[in-house]
Amino acid sequence: MRYLPGEAQQLPGNRASLAGYQARHFLFDVADGVATLTLNRPERKNPLTFDSYAELRELFRALAYADDVKAVVIAGAGENFCSGGDVHDIIGPLTKLDMPGLLAFTRMTGDVVKAMRACPQPVVAAIDGICAGAGAMLALAADMRLGTARSKTAYLFTRVGLAGCDMGACALLPRLIGQGRASELLYTGRSMGGAEGERWGFFNSLHEPQELLAAARALAQRLADGPTFAHGMTKKMLQQEWNMGVDEAIEAEAQAQAICMATNDFHRAYHAFVAKQKPQFEGD
Amino acid sequence: MRYLPGEAQQLPGNRASLAGYQARHFLFDVADGVATLTLNRPERKNPLTFDSYAELRELFRALAYADDVKAVVIAGAGENFCSGGDVHDIIGPLTKLDMPGLLAFTRMTGDVVKAMRACPQPVVAAIDGICAGAGAMLALAADMRLGTARSKTAYLFTRVGLAGCDMGACALLPRLIGQGRASELLYTGRSMGGAEGERWGFFNSLHEPQELLAAARALAQRLADGPTFAHGMTKKMLQQEWNMGVDEAIEAEAQAQAICMATNDFHRAYHAFVAKQKPQFEGD
Amino acid sequence: MRYLPGEAQQLPGNRASLAGYQARHFLFDVADGVATLTLNRPERKNPLTFDSYAELRELFRALAYADDVKAVVIAGAGENFCSGGDVHDIIGPLTKLDMPGLLAFTRMTGDVVKAMRACPQPVVAAIDGICAGAGAMLALAADMRLGTARSKTAYLFTRVGLAGCDMGACALLPRLIGQGRASELLYTGRSMGGAEGERWGFFNSLHEPQELLAAARALAQRLADGPTFAHGMTKKMLQQEWNMGVDEAIEAEAQAQAICMATNDFHRAYHAFVAKQKPQFEGD
Repeated sequence: MRYLPGEAQQLPGNRASLAGYQARHFLFDVADGVATLTLNRPERKNPLTFDSYAELRELFRALAYADDVKAVVIAGAGENFCSGGDVHDIIGPLTKLDMPGLLAFTRMTGDVVKAMRACPQPVVAAIDGICAGAGAMLALAADMRLGTARSKTAYLFTRVGLAGCDMGACALLPRLIGQGRASELLYTGRSMGGAEGERWGFFNSLHEPQELLAAARALAQRLADGPTFAHGMTKKMLQQEWNMGVDEAIEAEAQAQAICMATNDFHRAYHAFVAKQKPQFEGD
Repeated sequence: MRYLPGEAQQLPGNRASLAGYQARHFLFDVADGVATLTLNRPERKNPLTFDSYAELRELFRALAYADDVKAVVIAGAGENFCSGGDVHDIIGPLTKLDMPGLLAFTRMTGDVVKAMRACPQPVVAAIDGICAGAGAMLALAADMRLGTARSKTAYLFTRVGLAGCDMGACALLPRLIGQGRASELLYTGRSMGGAEGERWGFFNSLHEPQELLAAARALAQRLADGPTFAHGMTKKMLQQEWNMGVDEAIEAEAQAQAICMATNDFHRAYHAFVAKQKPQFEGD
Repeated sequence: MRYLPGEAQQLPGNRASLAGYQARHFLFDVADGVATLTLNRPERKNPLTFDSYAELRELFRALAYADDVKAVVIAGAGENFCSGGDVHDIIGPLTKLDMPGLLAFTRMTGDVVKAMRACPQPVVAAIDGICAGAGAMLALAADMRLGTARSKTAYLFTRVGLAGCDMGACALLPRLIGQGRASELLYTGRSMGGAEGERWGFFNSLHEPQELLAAARALAQRLADGPTFAHGMTKKMLQQEWNMGVDEAIEAEAQAQAICMATNDFHRAYHAFVAKQKPQFEGD
C-alpha cells in the first residue's frame, strides 16, 4: 500500500483531488484539468521498475475518484517513450521468483492496464523514439496514441523467451490493428515504425518530435474542456461492450445515454445551441 | 403501433409484401427486389424526427417478413445523407423528459439499429454530404457503405454534451475501423472525410456524387439477383458470431451452411455449372 | 480414422514425431523444425477433396503433439494456392446428401480450421495465384499470410448459392480486415487483389512470386528458432481471448505469462543478455 497516493485529498461524494500529488517514480503535474505523466529516466530510455509499476497502478486507480483531472497525457522524457521492464531491475529478479511470485508480478503489470482502462479520464499517449515491451503496453492501454515518424513500437516479449500475451496484448492489439498484423508483431517482436503504425490504426496521427507533446496536450485539453461525465461514459462503454452481442450493446448504450441525457451538460448544450452560443461544459 | 406498415400484405408462411408500402416520413420504393429508402427533408439535410425513427423501426421489422424485398438501399435526398436527430424537434423535447421517457427514446433509436441488423436483406448505405449523429449510426448499421470524397461523417454526440455510446456506436464502430480510430471519433466528435473513411474501412468504395446512388443500387441489385436466402444467412451469422469463441462460431457455421446446402439455389448453381451456364438464383 | 497419421512416432510425455510422416493427399516435409505442407494438384489449381480435408484435419490434430515441428508453412504447387472444394468432386456429391450427411461435411471442413487454430505451431500461408473458397479459409486460418501482387483471394461461396458463413469466415475475416470490408467480400464473393489485401491487413507482406515460398519459410524458420513454447502460448491466448472481456483477458495473460516465466528459455534469454550474447532458445 506504500504507493497509494496519500496526497490525494478526499472530497465529499467519493471524490478526491490529485492536483497536489507528488509522484515518486515519474513526473506528474496537473494544469487546467489535464494531468501529464512523464516517465523520467531518459538516460535509460525510461524503463519501468517494480516501483514505477506499482505507483502507476495506484495512481490510475486514484484517478477514478479525482475530481480535478479530466484527461491524462502519458509521455516519456528525452525523445523516447518507454523501454519497458528493465533487464537488470526486472528480468533478473524475475528469474529467481517462484510461481506465486511470478504471478504476483504479472498481475501487478496487468493491473496497470486494468486501472488505465477503468479510470474515467481519456488517456492520450505521446510516443516518440523507443516504445517497447511493457512500454508498448502502456501505449496500447491508452485511449488514443499520437506518434512520431521515427518512433519504434515493439511487443518484444518473445525476444526474452516470453509469449506475446502480456498485460492484455493478445486482446487489445488485434482490435486496434487487426488480427493478422497483431499476430506478426506478437510472434516476431519486430518494431512497428511510425508511418506503419499510423497506416494500421495504432497511431491516431503523427507529429514532429518537437510538437508531439503539445499536440497530445491540446487533444487532452479539448477533451477536458468537453462534457467529461459523458467522456467517462464513452470510455466505460467501449470497455463494457468489448465482448457483448450487438443487441445487448445497444440496450447497454440506451441506458448509458439516457443517464447522460439527464446531465446538466446536455441541457447546457441545448440552450447554448438555441442561443447560438458555444456550450460551456462542466462535467456534471 | 401507429407506424406499423399496415399496407404490408400478409402472405402464407409468415411472408408479406412491402412493394405497395406507402411511407409517411421518408420515400420508399421497391423495384426488382431492391427497396430504396430516401430520407427526404433536403432543406434541413434530412434530419430524423420522433416519427421517422419510429417508422424506420417498424419498416425494418416488417422487412424481416417481406417476400418481395431482397436488398435495401438507404440514401438521403439533395446531396446529404442525414443530419441526425434535429436539435429543435428532438433535443429540445428530450431536455423535458423524465428518466423513463429518456430511456424510451434511447431504446427507440437503438431499436432502429437492432431492426436493421435483424432483417435478412443486406443494407447498402449511399452517403454523400453530411452524415451526422444518428445519421452516422444508420450508416454504421448498414452492411456496406458507399460514399463520396466530400462526405463528412461525424459521431458528434459529444458536441451536445452526450456520450459516444449511442445506438450501438461503441460496439459497431471499433469493429469497422479499429478501436483507436473509433475512440478518436467518438471522444472528439470530429468529422471523418470520405478518403479517410475509405482508407479506414468505413466506406467500401467512393464514387462521384452523381453516380453514388446508381452504384449503391447496382450493388444491391447484384445481391438481390443472387442467392438471397444464403445472403440472409450470411447476415444472420455475422451478427450471431459477434461475440462467440472461434470454435463455437465454426460449429454455428457448420449448421448454417448445411441448411444452405439443402436449398434449391445450391442445387441450381451446381447444375448450371455442369451445364456451363450462369446460375439463376431464386432465393429458395 | 483412416487418415490418422499412423506414421507419427509416439514419444514419452504425450509427444510424437511427424518428421517421417508420409502424406497421402498433399506434399509434406519437415526440415529444421519447419514443416512445409504443399497442396499439389497444380493442373487443377490445387482443389480440396473429401480425402484431403480429412487428412488436413488429422495432420493438424497430430501437430498438437509433434515434438519436431515448430512452425508450419502451407503453400500451393504451381503458382496457385488453392481453388477450394472441387465442383465435381465435392459439390456434386454434396447435392445428393441428406441433412446429417451435409452437417458431417460442414463439420469436417470446420474441423480443419479448428485444428489449425488449436495446434501450437504458428502457421504461415504462402499465397500466390488463386486462393478461393475453402482455400481462402485455409489462408484465413493461418496465423500470418504472405502473398503476391497477382494473388486473387475470394470467399466465393455465394457464387454456388451458399452463404458466406463457411468454416468460420464470418468470425475470422471481420477481425482481420474489418467488418465492412469482410461483409463486402462475403456477400459478393468478389476477389481481393494482393495490394488490396496487404492494405487491408489480410496479407502481412507481398513478395515476388519466385521469392514467396522462401520468404514464408524464412519467417517460419525464425519462429522455429525462437522460444517455441512461448509462441504456442501466444497462439493459444490469441484464441482464448477472442471473446473475453478486457479484464478477464488480462488475468488470463497474467497466468499464461507467469507459466512462460518459469521456462528455461526465459532464463536462457536473461543470461545471454547479461553475457551480451544472442540467446539460444530450445522451446522448453
